Amino acid sequence: MQIGMIGLGRMGANMVRRMLRAGHSCVVYDINQKAVAGLASEGATPAASLEDFVQKLEKPRTAWLMLPAAITGAQVAKLEPLLEKGDIIVDGGNSNYRDAVDQASRLEPKGLAYVDVGTSGGVWGLERGYCLMIGGPDEAVKHLDPIFAALAPGAEPDTSPARDTAGPGAPLDHFGTARLGYLHCGPSGAGHFVKMVHNGIEYGVMAAYAEGINILKAANAGDSHRPADAETTPLGEPQYYRFDIDLPAVTEVWRHGSVIGSWLLDLTAGALKADPALQNYGGRVSDSGEGRWTLKAAIDTSVPAPVLSAALFDRFSSRGESAFADKLLSAMRYAFGGHAEKPKE
Amino acid sequence: MQIGMIGLGRMGANMVRRMLRAGHSCVVYDINQKAVAGLASEGATPAASLEDFVQKLEKPRTAWLMLPAAITGAQVAKLEPLLEKGDIIVDGGNSNYRDAVDQASRLEPKGLAYVDVGTSGGVWGLERGYCLMIGGPDEAVKHLDPIFAALAPGAEPDTSPARDTAGPGAPLDHFGTARLGYLHCGPSGAGHFVKMVHNGIEYGVMAAYAEGINILKAANAGDSHRPADAETTPLGEPQYYRFDIDLPAVTEVWRHGSVIGSWLLDLTAGALKADPALQNYGGRVSDSGEGRWTLKAAIDTSVPAPVLSAALFDRFSSRGESAFADKLLSAMRYAFGGHAEKPKE
Amino acid sequence: MQIGMIGLGRMGANMVRRMLRAGHSCVVYDINQKAVAGLASEGATPAASLEDFVQKLEKPRTAWLMLPAAITGAQVAKLEPLLEKGDIIVDGGNSNYRDAVDQASRLEPKGLAYVDVGTSGGVWGLERGYCLMIGGPDEAVKHLDPIFAALAPGAEPDTSPARDTAGPGAPLDHFGTARLGYLHCGPSGAGHFVKMVHNGIEYGVMAAYAEGINILKAANAGDSHRPADAETTPLGEPQYYRFDIDLPAVTEVWRHGSVIGSWLLDLTAGALKADPALQNYGGRVSDSGEGRWTLKAAIDTSVPAPVLSAALFDRFSSRGESAFADKLLSAMRYAFGGHAEKPKE
Amino acid sequence: MQIGMIGLGRMGANMVRRMLRAGHSCVVYDINQKAVAGLASEGATPAASLEDFVQKLEKPRTAWLMLPAAITGAQVAKLEPLLEKGDIIVDGGNSNYRDAVDQASRLEPKGLAYVDVGTSGGVWGLERGYCLMIGGPDEAVKHLDPIFAALAPGAEPDTSPARDTAGPGAPLDHFGTARLGYLHCGPSGAGHFVKMVHNGIEYGVMAAYAEGINILKAANAGDSHRPADAETTPLGEPQYYRFDIDLPAVTEVWRHGSVIGSWLLDLTAGALKADPALQNYGGRVSDSGEGRWTLKAAIDTSVPAPVLSAALFDRFSSRGESAFADKLLSAMRYAFGGHAEKPKE
Repeated sequence: MQIGMIGLGRMGANMVRRMLRAGHSCVVYDINQKAVAGLASEGATPAASLEDFVQKLEKPRTAWLMLPAAITGAQVAKLEPLLEKGDIIVDGGNSNYRDAVDQASRLEPKGLAYVDVGTSGGVWGLERGYCLMIGGPDEAVKHLDPIFAALAPGAEPDTSPARDTAGPGAPLDHFGTARLGYLHCGPSGAGHFVKMVHNGIEYGVMAAYAEGINILKAANAGDSHRPADAETTPLGEPQYYRFDIDLPAVTEVWRHGSVIGSWLLDLTAGALKADPALQNYGGRVSDSGEGRWTLKAAIDTSVPAPVLSAALFDRFSSRGESAFADKLLSAMRYAFGGHAEKPKE
Repeated sequence: MQIGMIGLGRMGANMVRRMLRAGHSCVVYDINQKAVAGLASEGATPAASLEDFVQKLEKPRTAWLMLPAAITGAQVAKLEPLLEKGDIIVDGGNSNYRDAVDQASRLEPKGLAYVDVGTSGGVWGLERGYCLMIGGPDEAVKHLDPIFAALAPGAEPDTSPARDTAGPGAPLDHFGTARLGYLHCGPSGAGHFVKMVHNGIEYGVMAAYAEGINILKAANAGDSHRPADAETTPLGEPQYYRFDIDLPAVTEVWRHGSVIGSWLLDLTAGALKADPALQNYGGRVSDSGEGRWTLKAAIDTSVPAPVLSAALFDRFSSRGESAFADKLLSAMRYAFGGHAEKPKE
Repeated sequence: MQIGMIGLGRMGANMVRRMLRAGHSCVVYDINQKAVAGLASEGATPAASLEDFVQKLEKPRTAWLMLPAAITGAQVAKLEPLLEKGDIIVDGGNSNYRDAVDQASRLEPKGLAYVDVGTSGGVWGLERGYCLMIGGPDEAVKHLDPIFAALAPGAEPDTSPARDTAGPGAPLDHFGTARLGYLHCGPSGAGHFVKMVHNGIEYGVMAAYAEGINILKAANAGDSHRPADAETTPLGEPQYYRFDIDLPAVTEVWRHGSVIGSWLLDLTAGALKADPALQNYGGRVSDSGEGRWTLKAAIDTSVPAPVLSAALFDRFSSRGESAFADKLLSAMRYAFGGHAEKPKE
Repeated sequence: MQIGMIGLGRMGANMVRRMLRAGHSCVVYDINQKAVAGLASEGATPAASLEDFVQKLEKPRTAWLMLPAAITGAQVAKLEPLLEKGDIIVDGGNSNYRDAVDQASRLEPKGLAYVDVGTSGGVWGLERGYCLMIGGPDEAVKHLDPIFAALAPGAEPDTSPARDTAGPGAPLDHFGTARLGYLHCGPSGAGHFVKMVHNGIEYGVMAAYAEGINILKAANAGDSHRPADAETTPLGEPQYYRFDIDLPAVTEVWRHGSVIGSWLLDLTAGALKADPALQNYGGRVSDSGEGRWTLKAAIDTSVPAPVLSAALFDRFSSRGESAFADKLLSAMRYAFGGHAEKPKE
């Protein structure tokens, strides 16, 4: 089967590779022509322009976009006049699901299908396969099934003893393709909605590990001096905080048989093994939108999300965004109690 | 090797079985003599009383306790006068790590070793092995190594593509036994400290999934009527909330290749598959202490833990513990704005 | 000066009364003609229909709307064709500030001014005056100054010893009218934006008191029995929780000289005095939108708001919205540990 | 009446002054003899040593301590052998209420009364009076009533229209002295318990204002450029964030008639008026213990406190204590997605 890919960054390029390996053919386009040439040398069909890209696609055409959310809309606008009834646009990036709802209702009358595919797997997807959360009209999604099957991990032996295991040859159960790593979640927007919540959960899970490991790191607080002034809480029972915890070893042991085993823990243990003090990081944590949109959805639908919001707001704080609020607190403390700020030690 | 086990509930009984299967011998005691008889029929040596239990142990004796935290201290007090210099008490339950610090400093002068073993794995541990986080004096921990090795999962093929994989026959790396699923974390108390934080993280990870899935469930909010009164926020854009998400299928697909794959997700997908509406649960979530103690440790050591605390407090709220606070909010709203509470729909 | 008021609920009716007392004249309209007749008997000019309302207004007309947010937009749409260039629409309700931004940019080309007035003061405003946060074009806001001055508290003796006090006759400082209780905050939308954040803060302040008082109420926990099972955290040191705190008296004493004195505390103390167990409340706490919108603004602008979000989500939870998430937690606990839910005592 | 004061810092010295002004006599002691001499020149009786201090006190002696929590215990230990049956020790500092529980049960058999007095009012207390939350045995508390009455604000005209007002001459109601600004809250420890929760609430209220004002400050985010890359969430609708809010003016207007009027808001408005950008503060916010202890009490008694905990943890974060957790998040993001941290702009 043939497909066209626009956007050959980390994600897009590896997805093309995985499709090529599965025997599909790919027309590729990017404003960075080096990226195009690189994939051409691996067997993809290069396109020199958007027009060239569209021309090289067999009908019905499928144009799959892997672009930053801020750019996707403009690219769709350029692409749209070049396409014909029956063609399919796939947005596989981290766009807001609302864009897919809007685009689909706009493009449907023109006979164009808009399919949103939330894609998880990161840099490991090439090897491991991508988990795909798909929204869009039935026909288009069905048409793309071979592509989804190629990108997804496929049937793996179920290694979790907590599950009814089904070997690779077993028939699919009522979840259809879920066990293969891809799922048609609903109409246009449903794929990105599910991916959005996936990332919202990801923020929370990551923060849970990070906070816990930070507590382990502080387990030797009883060995440090704490000044005895009115601005500092005394550590009443230092005898309970005299542990020097080996963080790489602890995160490793948790990977084997504990309740909190996970792929994120695998990665954390690997990162701590390579760099126990994490000296290569400054601690300014980006967020690319899904965590925010998850919270907005929670707010709109009256769903409490205290953990997911705490995780998001910590990322904001890590980038200095609470500075003015903190100054206000110090100003209030000075105003009512004459408390002066203590300098950084 | 021989060991004695006191407390034959879910955890204790299965741990005895796993040790028996590995060729160790076990003396077993419980106030519930049926539990004792049951394990005797599986090859354990039954003890009729604490005195009998101690008498049947070879020196140096090892008495392993698997009891609720509220009972362990009293049991140690009864056991202590029956033991001799060189004997070992193991607390494998979910006790506060501070108890281990205190017990060890009290028992050490008497020549008794106190080993605290945080044990994760739940009802799956019999089959899957237990992740063991161990605190205590070097000699005693070394002495018990064959027991730990039998209880732990042991070397598994490393299925995570994110890790340097090392097959079952590969030499252990610098983490020593961590790759086998057990780890000597430090002096007495260190094992339960690490287990405590493990459970604190567990609360956070669980809450992240629960909140996210609750948002997915509400993705059809745009199909519901929301009353147009001053006490209700209008849902401005219902067109973005018209998805009926198949929760069992989504949690299943996330298991395959996504960033948030984990054992807790495996269990969640299984639970939702068996009972999609979770009708068997009322939503009153217990907590058994570790989450609380994790937060107290965070507070003592000045470590921010907003996610872990939100997860804990949600459990309290699930049991109705915010009721009076909520009444206060309604009372304030009535007082300043004349707002009357809306009845439950 | 003359003004027209649409919406004669709690807020609208009292605002009319306060304007009448200040010597202004008011044309009043409501779909509830009883409300219209009531205010007519107090000196207002009744309107039988929207057309009648508009006809009775002197030019340039000012139509002030005090309606639920869900209705305001539709009312503006009906009103708009009846108005002429130079007329002013005031939205004094709790609308989303985005509506004001949109309405203003739509109506400005037609020569209609849109003024948004965030109004705080609740049922006490008639007596105490309303705090007004105003957005809109300079000319319209200036035109309405006598109305704002009548509605606002006006110059009060500054009773806070923490402030440079300025008596009622003192000249206004560089904040212009802020000391009188009303402020032109910026262009259309700015008034409701400031009021939105005001309410977001209100949620946080209310929750701080409610949580703290709930802790005081639990200060006798050491006198209660806590079951000794694996699902219940033991209360290690009951001797520290044997206080029976008199909540009405404590909230009263805090009103006199403490750092946390506030009007909300005044109201809380009054509510607890009248009904110490708050038996008249069920604890289902409504939210009318501003708290949600405040968080969305925080999310859009990358500002951490962990306290304001915790306060909002607690309101959602008070109405049962975390039920499914809590069931998921119980299901996970059962799945990994065989933990059964404990029934409500 | 005569009283002795140990600890002549900001709080202790002003309390002595307020007692002297009310006609009481004070023996004063501090390791800083300059502070002693200063108050002697204002009419207090100076003590050159602890022995001298005790000797100059009339029986039954009252020794009132105003010291940092980390020092109070040692001072009590020195004082105790110098005192006699019937004497009273008052701890007016910010000690953990548990110390009062312990001290009282230790000293009661020796005939010494231990009275804990939570004291709020800060640097304004001299002028405004101190709010006193008192724990201790009835007799001792009754004996000290004239002192409490002198320190407390006393009957003020009740300026809150939300309350039944009672003029200065009105009889005290069933709250006894609460309306005068002091309250006997229960046995030893109760005073510091109530003060602890008071400060816990204070943290939450302060954070609510600080977060809200930080959102107001960001209301012009739509005027800034946000880079269009995969690490940055696009601001979808910049037209809604084009407000330049005058923070000093807004906090001032909120003081007049709004629901969130409070003394902390008075102080905030004053601080912003004096220094709108808060250039004199770095944003490292101290905490002196009560917020931590409030949370521990919430945890022990199963009371949800998400707002109070978020406020505490933000203070920890403001001092850099989340740095390692944030590095872990960045390390995970790099591990699964190849995301590199963005440098500070």
